[in-house]
Amino acid sequence: MEIRFQAIGIIHTPYKESAPYQPVEEAEDEFTAVLEPRYEAGLFKLEKFRYIYLIYYIDRLNVQPKMHVKPPWAGSVEVGLFASRSPARPNPIGLSVVKVKKVEGNVVYTSGLDVFDGTPLLDIKPYIRELDSKEDANYGWIEGLDNREHLMLHIKGIPHKY
Amino acid sequence: MEIRFQAIGIIHTPYKESAPYQPVEEAEDEFTAVLEPRYEAGLFKLEKFRYIYLIYYIDRLNVQPKMHVKPPWAGSVEVGLFASRSPARPNPIGLSVVKVKKVEGNVVYTSGLDVFDGTPLLDIKPYIRELDSKEDANYGWIEGLDNREHLMLHIKGIPHKY
Repeated sequence: MEIRFQAIGIIHTPYKESAPYQPVEEAEDEFTAVLEPRYEAGLFKLEKFRYIYLIYYIDRLNVQPKMHVKPPWAGSVEVGLFASRSPARPNPIGLSVVKVKKVEGNVVYTSGLDVFDGTPLLDIKPYIRELDSKEDANYGWIEGLDNREHLMLHIKGIPHKY
Repeated sequence: MEIRFQAIGIIHTPYKESAPYQPVEEAEDEFTAVLEPRYEAGLFKLEKFRYIYLIYYIDRLNVQPKMHVKPPWAGSVEVGLFASRSPARPNPIGLSVVKVKKVEGNVVYTSGLDVFDGTPLLDIKPYIRELDSKEDANYGWIEGLDNREHLMLHIKGIPHKY
């Protein structure tokens, strides 16, 4: 079965040639999701949410997915592709949790986002505290690594000195 | 631009003809994501995570999406489609956060999941505490409703008496 989707809009970021691995909330540049005008009415009351999910098509990657990967920030640890957030997946669907700054017309202004400028947007969903915020969530295999806090800076793309 | 995906596996649930709106964590029935054998190696170390995202294709819905919706559990409140989790979306991509119970071969056993039996699976991603658990997340427009706690039972599909 082949499944067909179409972009509902385009994500704009400052990243033309490289991007962090994961959203950088503190980034000061402008990050927007610009919907096609026919979908603008679908944004009604979205601004009430502090966080939303952006779901997008990772279109800038021409790499055949491998079932075992070594995340670049995790040294030489090898894990299964589905236990990683590697962008090279059988279906290159990207998922990011971002803050909503404001909504103006068909434009959603968000916190930092880890994708290339021009990335096709597939969906926006509200991040609802009781459904999506799991306070007992863990770090999976990352917990077993020596310097987890330092690694989290890498995975979140936060600049740091050591 | 047309975007093409293929199922990487199938989700099995007890729901043949109706399903709750959102995952029911407490459900005692069996919920599994069965991957195609060629993707089995991609599950290595997935079991280390307490929660994962399942991303799937909502294939059992032949409804044209409307940009304003009235979620069935929210009385007569009207909101934008993208401020809702309605399944009738321009790209019918479903997203659920579930607990990993165990992984055996190409089968992931999960907590309760709000989809029909036989739903095509598109991706599995680890839910990583520091990236995905937003403790300051809110309830968006749901906060303005009178009986939010009662409504959350509905949105989560939890059986209750009143």
